[in-house]
Amino acid sequence: MNEFEGLNIEQRHGKARVRVARVWRSKQGRHFMVEWNVSISLLSDCINAYLQDDNSDIVATDTMKNTVYAKAKECSNQVSVEEFAIQLAKHFVSYYRQVTSAIVNIVEKPWERVHIDGQPHEHGFKLGSERHTTEVIVQKSGALQITSGVEGLAVLKTTKSGFEGFIRDKYTVLPDTRERILATEVTGSWRYSYESVFNIPQKSLYFTERYLDVKKVLMDTFFGCPKEGVYSPSVQSTLYQMAKVVLSRFHDVSSVKLKMPNLHFLPLNLSTKDNIIVKFEDDVYLPTDEPHGSIEASLSHIPSKM
Amino acid sequence: MNEFEGLNIEQRHGKARVRVARVWRSKQGRHFMVEWNVSISLLSDCINAYLQDDNSDIVATDTMKNTVYAKAKECSNQVSVEEFAIQLAKHFVSYYRQVTSAIVNIVEKPWERVHIDGQPHEHGFKLGSERHTTEVIVQKSGALQITSGVEGLAVLKTTKSGFEGFIRDKYTVLPDTRERILATEVTGSWRYSYESVFNIPQKSLYFTERYLDVKKVLMDTFFGCPKEGVYSPSVQSTLYQMAKVVLSRFHDVSSVKLKMPNLHFLPLNLSTKDNIIVKFEDDVYLPTDEPHGSIEASLSHIPSKM
Amino acid sequence: MNEFEGLNIEQRHGKARVRVARVWRSKQGRHFMVEWNVSISLLSDCINAYLQDDNSDIVATDTMKNTVYAKAKECSNQVSVEEFAIQLAKHFVSYYRQVTSAIVNIVEKPWERVHIDGQPHEHGFKLGSERHTTEVIVQKSGALQITSGVEGLAVLKTTKSGFEGFIRDKYTVLPDTRERILATEVTGSWRYSYESVFNIPQKSLYFTERYLDVKKVLMDTFFGCPKEGVYSPSVQSTLYQMAKVVLSRFHDVSSVKLKMPNLHFLPLNLSTKDNIIVKFEDDVYLPTDEPHGSIEASLSHIPSKM
Amino acid sequence: MNEFEGLNIEQRHGKARVRVARVWRSKQGRHFMVEWNVSISLLSDCINAYLQDDNSDIVATDTMKNTVYAKAKECSNQVSVEEFAIQLAKHFVSYYRQVTSAIVNIVEKPWERVHIDGQPHEHGFKLGSERHTTEVIVQKSGALQITSGVEGLAVLKTTKSGFEGFIRDKYTVLPDTRERILATEVTGSWRYSYESVFNIPQKSLYFTERYLDVKKVLMDTFFGCPKEGVYSPSVQSTLYQMAKVVLSRFHDVSSVKLKMPNLHFLPLNLSTKDNIIVKFEDDVYLPTDEPHGSIEASLSHIPSKM
Repeated sequence: MNEFEGLNIEQRHGKARVRVARVWRSKQGRHFMVEWNVSISLLSDCINAYLQDDNSDIVATDTMKNTVYAKAKECSNQVSVEEFAIQLAKHFVSYYRQVTSAIVNIVEKPWERVHIDGQPHEHGFKLGSERHTTEVIVQKSGALQITSGVEGLAVLKTTKSGFEGFIRDKYTVLPDTRERILATEVTGSWRYSYESVFNIPQKSLYFTERYLDVKKVLMDTFFGCPKEGVYSPSVQSTLYQMAKVVLSRFHDVSSVKLKMPNLHFLPLNLSTKDNIIVKFEDDVYLPTDEPHGSIEASLSHIPSKM
Repeated sequence: MNEFEGLNIEQRHGKARVRVARVWRSKQGRHFMVEWNVSISLLSDCINAYLQDDNSDIVATDTMKNTVYAKAKECSNQVSVEEFAIQLAKHFVSYYRQVTSAIVNIVEKPWERVHIDGQPHEHGFKLGSERHTTEVIVQKSGALQITSGVEGLAVLKTTKSGFEGFIRDKYTVLPDTRERILATEVTGSWRYSYESVFNIPQKSLYFTERYLDVKKVLMDTFFGCPKEGVYSPSVQSTLYQMAKVVLSRFHDVSSVKLKMPNLHFLPLNLSTKDNIIVKFEDDVYLPTDEPHGSIEASLSHIPSKM
Repeated sequence: MNEFEGLNIEQRHGKARVRVARVWRSKQGRHFMVEWNVSISLLSDCINAYLQDDNSDIVATDTMKNTVYAKAKECSNQVSVEEFAIQLAKHFVSYYRQVTSAIVNIVEKPWERVHIDGQPHEHGFKLGSERHTTEVIVQKSGALQITSGVEGLAVLKTTKSGFEGFIRDKYTVLPDTRERILATEVTGSWRYSYESVFNIPQKSLYFTERYLDVKKVLMDTFFGCPKEGVYSPSVQSTLYQMAKVVLSRFHDVSSVKLKMPNLHFLPLNLSTKDNIIVKFEDDVYLPTDEPHGSIEASLSHIPSKM
Repeated sequence: MNEFEGLNIEQRHGKARVRVARVWRSKQGRHFMVEWNVSISLLSDCINAYLQDDNSDIVATDTMKNTVYAKAKECSNQVSVEEFAIQLAKHFVSYYRQVTSAIVNIVEKPWERVHIDGQPHEHGFKLGSERHTTEVIVQKSGALQITSGVEGLAVLKTTKSGFEGFIRDKYTVLPDTRERILATEVTGSWRYSYESVFNIPQKSLYFTERYLDVKKVLMDTFFGCPKEGVYSPSVQSTLYQMAKVVLSRFHDVSSVKLKMPNLHFLPLNLSTKDNIIVKFEDDVYLPTDEPHGSIEASLSHIPSKM
C-alpha cells in the first residue's frame, strides 16, 4: 500500500489464463505431458503508470506470457507444477528491479495416461476429473509461500451420514436424520512449511507425489473403510477429520483449508390431498446444486507459520 | 405438421433438466446408485392450447416431472439409463390418449465406485469424466428408436499424428506435418437396430455393458496398441476407423455418429527480429479451444435402418 | 450420403468459434464495429481422406479460418451479419471444386453504442444482452437458405399469466392458476423466403433492420400494451401469437421457430406443523432454472418453402 | 481463530445460491420486482460440531435459506439489495447467541422495466447485462462493513487507446502503439463509510441510486466525452482515473476497488512467404479472452477506513 495524491493505492498487474503444454519424450519411447493454465500477478514499483501515464516501469503482460513459454521450454526434465511455478516466480523477482513480489497460480489439467488392456500407453492420455492446483508467492528476498491444492474433487456416499440435534427455531423445517446421502465437491489447499526458495525439497517430482498422497488421505478419511465406511454426523465433523489427518500425516504441511459445499440430495416425497405419488424410502432423491450449504475451515499447527 | 388458420404448425412441449437419483441397496450391503438428468418432449394432439387457449389436452410439464420421480421409484431393481428412458417414454404414449410420440433424453452423471486400497467401497462414489447419454423415441404403436452415446470423452496423443497433402491456395498458411499432438473431445452416439419396445434385450443392464464395450472400442482404435500406437493421417481418417470398428463389432448397432473437434495444440515458436525466444522442437505447445476444427460423420449399414 | 465399403457415409468438416471483429471509421469520426463468432461447415467431395488417408481434396480448417479474416478485410463498407455469412458461403462453394454446399453460422456479440448524457458516443460501446444470430446455407448452384435469429432474449412479466384446465391425473400436483409470473428466455429464428444468392435485397443493412423489427414485434406481443398488458393462458398460446404476428407482418419471412422454456418462479409457501413461516400472497417467489418447461413450435405459410 | 487439540481452527458455514424474487404491486397498477441470489456465511461459536460431533450450536443452513424467504416476505416496501442484506445480517447476529458475525453477499439479476413504444410497461421486464452486487458484514455489536459493486460491465472503445514505453527485454515482442482497441469487463466494488447498522441513510432506495450514479461515473470516465473521447495510455491509468473520480464525487465512499482485465483485440496480419493475406489497417481484429491482462487496484482515502 502506497500513498499518492492524498490516497492510498494498492495495485497489481499480471496475465491470466496463459495456457501451455509441455511434452517430454524418454529415450525408451515413453512420453510425459502436462497442460497448465497459468496466472501471474506482479507487485511492482510502477505507480507512475497509474499517476503519470509513464509506462517505463511496467512489465508488459504480453512479456509475462512469453516468459511462461520460454520457461516451459527451459524445463528439459519433467517438473511438478509447483516447481514450475517457483521457477517462474523467481524469474520475475530477480530479473526485474521493479518487481518486489510475484504470485503465480497454476491449474494443471488432469490428463491421465490411458491403459489399453491393462498396459500403460506410451503416448496416450485421457482427461480425468479433479484438478491439481498451486499458488506460489515469492519475494525479492527469496521468501516463499507455497500452497498446493485440489479442486473439483466430487465425492458422494449413499449412507453413513446424518445431521441431528441442531438449533430448532421458528425458521427451522429440516428434520433430524441419521440416514442421508452426503455429497460434496471438495476444494482443498495445503500450505507447505518451506519459507524460502533456497530450501525446498530437491527430489524430482516431490510435490506431485505429495499431491497424490494428500488426495488419497482426504478420500480415505471421507469414505472410511471399504466394508463399513464411517459415520458422518455433519459436514463440519467430516471436514475436520479430513484436515486433521492431513496435518498429522505430512510433516511439511503447516496448514490445511477445505471448502466442502453440502450438495443436497433431497428425499423425494410427493403427494396430493388424496394420493401418495412417491413415498421416500431411502431410494429416490432430488439432487440439487442450488442452494447448497457452504462449510469451510482452516486448520494449522500452533504456532502457525501462515 | 398440422395445418390451422392457413399455417403449418409443428409443436412439442416437455420438461427439461429433471434431476433424479436412485439408490439400490443389496442385502449384502453393497449400494448401487445413478444420477440422471432427464429431458422429455411430447408430440401430442393439443393444438387447441395454441389456437383456442384451451389447455384440456395438455399434459402439464410439472406432471411430466412428477412422473420421472414416480417411475424411478418403481424401479425396484437396478436398470440401465436406456431401460429407464424406454419405461418413461412407453408410459407417456400409453397413458395419454393425446400423446402420439415421446422423446426422452437422459444424461447419466459419471459417479464411479471408489476403491480404497484396492477394495471396492460398498457405498462410496466419485465423479468421473465422460458421460453416458441416451435418446429414446417411442410411438403410440410401440415403434422404437433407441440411441446411446458418450459425451465429454477427451483424449489426446502426443505423437503418431500428422496432416499433409491438403489443398494449398492463397488462403493457406498451415504447413504439412507428420508430427503433431492430436486432441479431441469425442461426442459419439450409436443407434441400436431394435425397432419396437417389444423386442429389446431382456438381459439386465444389457445397454450399460454395451456402453462400456463401445467406449472401449472407440478408445482402443483412437490410441492403437500401448507400445506402438497407430498413425493418424487426419481426424477424418481416425474418426472413420473408430466408427467402422464399432459397426463391425456390435451386431445390433445399425449406425454410428461421431463428432470430433480438432482441439489444436499449436507449435510454440516465438521470436523478435533479433532474437529467438522459443524454438519449437516438439516440446512446447499452445493449447487452444477457440477456434477448433469440427469434423463429424455418420456411418451406417446398407440398407440403413435409420 | 454416399456408399463406400458397404457403408453409407455422411460427413462434413469445418471450423468453429472463429472470432473476428471489424471496425469501420466514417470520415465524420463515427466508428461502427461488430464482433462475430463464425462457424463453418463444408459438405464436400473428400471421402478419400476418410477411406484412403488421402487429404488432397480437403480444405484445411485453418484455411477456412484465414478466409474469415480475409473476407472481413474485404468488407470496406459496413455489412449485416447475414450479408457477411452469404459472402463467406458463396466463396467456399465457388472457389473449391470439391465443395458442394457451405453452411455458415454466426453469432454477433451485442456491442451497443453508449450514450453519454444522452449523446451517442463516436467510438464507445457496451455489451448488451440478447444476441443476433444467422445461419446461411449456400449450394454450388447458388441456391440459398437464409435464417436469422435471436438468442438469450430473457423476458418476464409479473402478472397477466395463468395456466388452468390442463389434464389432471394421478401424477398431477400443480394447481390451476390465473396469476403467476411468466418468465422465459426466447430462442427464435425466422427463415427468409429468398432462395438464391442472386435475389437477396440489395439495401444496405437490410437484414440488420429486419432483425430489430422482428425482435420488437416479438416483445410487443409478449408484453402487450404498457398499461394493460395481455393475458397469457399458456406459454403455448403466447408463443403462437408471437410467431403468428411475425409471419403476418413481414412478407419475406416464410417460417418462424420459437423455443420458449418456461422458467418457473414458484410460489413460496413455507410452514411447519405448528407454524406458518411464509404464506404466499403473490409476492415472494422461488426462481428456478432446473427443471424447466420446454415449449417450442414452428409456424410456416402454406405451401411451406422449408 | 481458535485453538483446540493443539491446532488453530478458523471456520464458517452458511448457505450459498439462495434465490428469491420479490414483487411489489402499487395501487396505481405498477409492479416492481427484484431477483436476488443470496449467499450467507456465519462466524459462530459452534466448534463442538467439528470436534465433538455435537450440533447443538449449529444454525442449519436450511434454516438460513428459510430465513431469506421470510425476510423477503417482511419487506412490505421496496428495498435496495444493500438494505435487504443488512436486514438479513442483523437478524442472524441478534437472533442467535452463537453467531458473532454475519456475512451476506447478494447478486441482483439485472431485470429492467421494458418500454413499449417509449412507454414504461407496468409489469414487463427484460434481462439486461451488468449486475449489481453487495457484501455486508455485521458484528453482534452492530459494527458494519458495507460494500456495493458491479460485475459484468463489459465496455470497449475502438480508438483513443495506446500502450508504449514499457520495459523492453529479451522476452518482449509487443510493439509500442498509440492506436488499439481497449476492451474490458469491469468488476468494481466500493466500500461505504458507514460503520454501524444504526447510522445508515434512511432515504428509501438510497443505495440503489448510488449504484446507478457510481456506474455512470465509471462509464463516463472510461469513455470520455461523446465527441472526442479521452486518450488511455494504459489500463492502469484509466483504472486509476475511474477510481479516483468515484472517490472524489461520493463523500460516503471510503474506498474503491477495480479489476479490469485487458481483453485483447489483436491486430490481424496474415501472410505466407509469398503472399500477404490480410494486412492490418486498424480494421480487422482477433478478439480473445485467453490469455488476458489482469490489472487491479484499490484506492482509499487517508486515513483509510478499510
